[in-house]
Amino acid sequence: MRSQKLRPRLLAAASVFLLIAQFPLQAGAEAIVAKEEVANFLLGNGMEVVVIPDHRAPIVTHMVWYKAGSADEPPGKSGIAHFFEHLMFKGTKTHKPGEFDAKVSEIGGNENAFTSYDYTAYHETISPDALGDMMAMEADRMRNLILTDEVIGPERDVVLEERRMRIEGDPDSLLSEEVQATLYQNHPYRVPVIGWMHEMEKLNRADATEFYDRFYTPNNAVLVVAGDVDVAAVRKMAEDTYGKVARGPDLPPRTRPTEPEQNTSRTVTMKDARVTLPSFGTQWVVPSYRTAENGEAEALDLLAEILGGGTRSRLYQALVVNDDAASGVGAYYNGTMLDDTSFTVYGAPRDKAALARLEADVAAQIQRIQRDGVTESELEKAKNRLIRSMVFAKDSPASMANIYGAALTTGSTVEDVQKWPERLQAITADQVKAVAVRYLRPRIAVTGYLLPDDSTSN
Amino acid sequence: MRSQKLRPRLLAAASVFLLIAQFPLQAGAEAIVAKEEVANFLLGNGMEVVVIPDHRAPIVTHMVWYKAGSADEPPGKSGIAHFFEHLMFKGTKTHKPGEFDAKVSEIGGNENAFTSYDYTAYHETISPDALGDMMAMEADRMRNLILTDEVIGPERDVVLEERRMRIEGDPDSLLSEEVQATLYQNHPYRVPVIGWMHEMEKLNRADATEFYDRFYTPNNAVLVVAGDVDVAAVRKMAEDTYGKVARGPDLPPRTRPTEPEQNTSRTVTMKDARVTLPSFGTQWVVPSYRTAENGEAEALDLLAEILGGGTRSRLYQALVVNDDAASGVGAYYNGTMLDDTSFTVYGAPRDKAALARLEADVAAQIQRIQRDGVTESELEKAKNRLIRSMVFAKDSPASMANIYGAALTTGSTVEDVQKWPERLQAITADQVKAVAVRYLRPRIAVTGYLLPDDSTSN
Repeated sequence: MRSQKLRPRLLAAASVFLLIAQFPLQAGAEAIVAKEEVANFLLGNGMEVVVIPDHRAPIVTHMVWYKAGSADEPPGKSGIAHFFEHLMFKGTKTHKPGEFDAKVSEIGGNENAFTSYDYTAYHETISPDALGDMMAMEADRMRNLILTDEVIGPERDVVLEERRMRIEGDPDSLLSEEVQATLYQNHPYRVPVIGWMHEMEKLNRADATEFYDRFYTPNNAVLVVAGDVDVAAVRKMAEDTYGKVARGPDLPPRTRPTEPEQNTSRTVTMKDARVTLPSFGTQWVVPSYRTAENGEAEALDLLAEILGGGTRSRLYQALVVNDDAASGVGAYYNGTMLDDTSFTVYGAPRDKAALARLEADVAAQIQRIQRDGVTESELEKAKNRLIRSMVFAKDSPASMANIYGAALTTGSTVEDVQKWPERLQAITADQVKAVAVRYLRPRIAVTGYLLPDDSTSN
Repeated sequence: MRSQKLRPRLLAAASVFLLIAQFPLQAGAEAIVAKEEVANFLLGNGMEVVVIPDHRAPIVTHMVWYKAGSADEPPGKSGIAHFFEHLMFKGTKTHKPGEFDAKVSEIGGNENAFTSYDYTAYHETISPDALGDMMAMEADRMRNLILTDEVIGPERDVVLEERRMRIEGDPDSLLSEEVQATLYQNHPYRVPVIGWMHEMEKLNRADATEFYDRFYTPNNAVLVVAGDVDVAAVRKMAEDTYGKVARGPDLPPRTRPTEPEQNTSRTVTMKDARVTLPSFGTQWVVPSYRTAENGEAEALDLLAEILGGGTRSRLYQALVVNDDAASGVGAYYNGTMLDDTSFTVYGAPRDKAALARLEADVAAQIQRIQRDGVTESELEKAKNRLIRSMVFAKDSPASMANIYGAALTTGSTVEDVQKWPERLQAITADQVKAVAVRYLRPRIAVTGYLLPDDSTSN
């Protein structure tokens, strides 16, 4: 139990997508890309396989991604996707609880798992000669878990404690949850990945079994293997392990309730005695890589980079470097999502009392782009930064596995990933301006405020 | 089509509950109550029947209430409950489309229907000798509707047009929708009764048939007959008509996702050129008559009455009569709901620029009750006003039918309705103060602002 409490199983969406943004999807027409041979095929039972050979070091990352995240949960059963991730480390018919962890430790590997809105993923980084064993164990727990009340009850206590520690104990996390619930008026991204406490408390064996039987099937999973391996050997091992698992029933398309037209601006305010420095974050619902058309997702990635993607960005230069107004400021875009997603700008002032001024300064930077657009020079630099970060990602099989896994479980293809740099290169300054005008409208902005407790009112 | 467009089929929740609040549920230990003999029984197929004889005039109100409202809709199918209400006026195997309307007109009656979050109701007020025919036709359409694409398509256009006229064309309605979507972070009361436009557009025959087969069954319906009738005769007619309809499958309990603990205050702002006078409304999630314990629902009804229930209320006296600050101000509580519901205070200033001051004045009135409570004298008067309004309701069989129908489809019983005055009488000033303190917390208030368009920003 203990090791699982400490293991960072839950990756909040923001972290997942910041990771993707730092190492954005690339390949294409360049020298680096020519080296990247990615194999992509289906096993007989419908399981998709991606193999990314990289022989520079004797190491391999093995990941299984399920197309099942919190946004796939039945209403009222929030948290079951993440709870189930925990249950995957329990015993199967042939392996005792904890054996999976022990095995990976024994061979000197490391392993982890995480749950997000659109997927749940399990990964191990190991020496290549252990890959067959890993696949056998991972294939085993895909269908053979023992889900008794004795298993469920104590692990539910673990995830409840995880929520208490990570969310209830952290005003910023509590605020984020309610901002999400306000931003999305209809779509299940409204519901937190970890679940609402009062619903998590009621999750039971029937819920777990139903979730398992529905989603944990080879035809709803993507195997990603990246590292010092040979494609033919991986295919053979995959067929001998995952390939033996019976195909599950075909799932209906992942069609979720979508957002209505929005007509209001909204604020969400959290006051808490633990807050010392006020901060704000403003969000908008925008298309994701899957739902966008006409390069709007790529343009949003560039807008986020130019506006607030690091120390070279307009926000940072204007409000941290030149003006000394902000202790932190930035923007990000969560593009790797199955459905319409969010674009965020945020800031914290150096001076406690200057929150409103900082917010106005950030708004002014957005308005400047909406009015005057971005320059060719900053567009070029932003493209280069995003593409360069991909080069770094290629240095790590684990990063590449992450990129492909997240893309393939959110409606993109291997080809989409590989052509991303080309598509990014084709974006014009006008397109960046256009998405700023179209999506970052103050009239429909949703802003969260985290404020120090300034009164005795309740 | 035309007559149906003009018929006020959709009762926004607020209107329904204002009606109930104006004519609150009563009976009990008083003289008036002794006269009220209400019969309550089940038919063999599980259909519940309530008969309220009233022989003062040769008139009868006949209502059928289905325990199916917008909060019972599947996610992504918003609007199907209300759309289905329209479809009930189409043809059956033995009656042509429009025949129902024509029949009621022919006998000089009037009829209507409405949909809310927890129920859909159909009612006719007619002469008693037509009751048997009405029951036969109402029982017929409970199961024999012809739902072809030719029927569905044109009527979907009608409800879309209804949404355009009532919601899209009205900034106040658009704002109300987004306030509800913000107030409820998890519960389906978040979704508008009429539906989100983009989901309504996709409602089809399969959706309609599924909704009909699931919810339009005698064991999911309540028949309410109020007026110049004899209980035994009504029972006989009901058995001969509704009693012949086959029982449907038992439905699972109406358990919907509930609200998480709330930690933030929120605002929702709508700016529109059509708005001339600004206004605000602040809401909180509070228990309903079904979910409340320890008299909290009755206390909330009294709090709403004392704080803002008409011209004798504190808000009206202080801010309209004495101060001339508000052109309108008030409070209401939507108690007749299956699940946790809302408590609202609202106001519009006389002077356009004085919105913030009025909001502060209203907040101060709430704080006064939270600090000092209410007086015995105003509590007595409020109880009397609420109970007196019930006396007026008894004058109209239609009002009584409404009260019982709404109560019985939101988890209350005939006895609950009849004992309401007793329970109301037992509420103390401390209980009223306690619900104000417990529920009207500024830190978790959700406030909607309707503002004139003051800029060219979008």
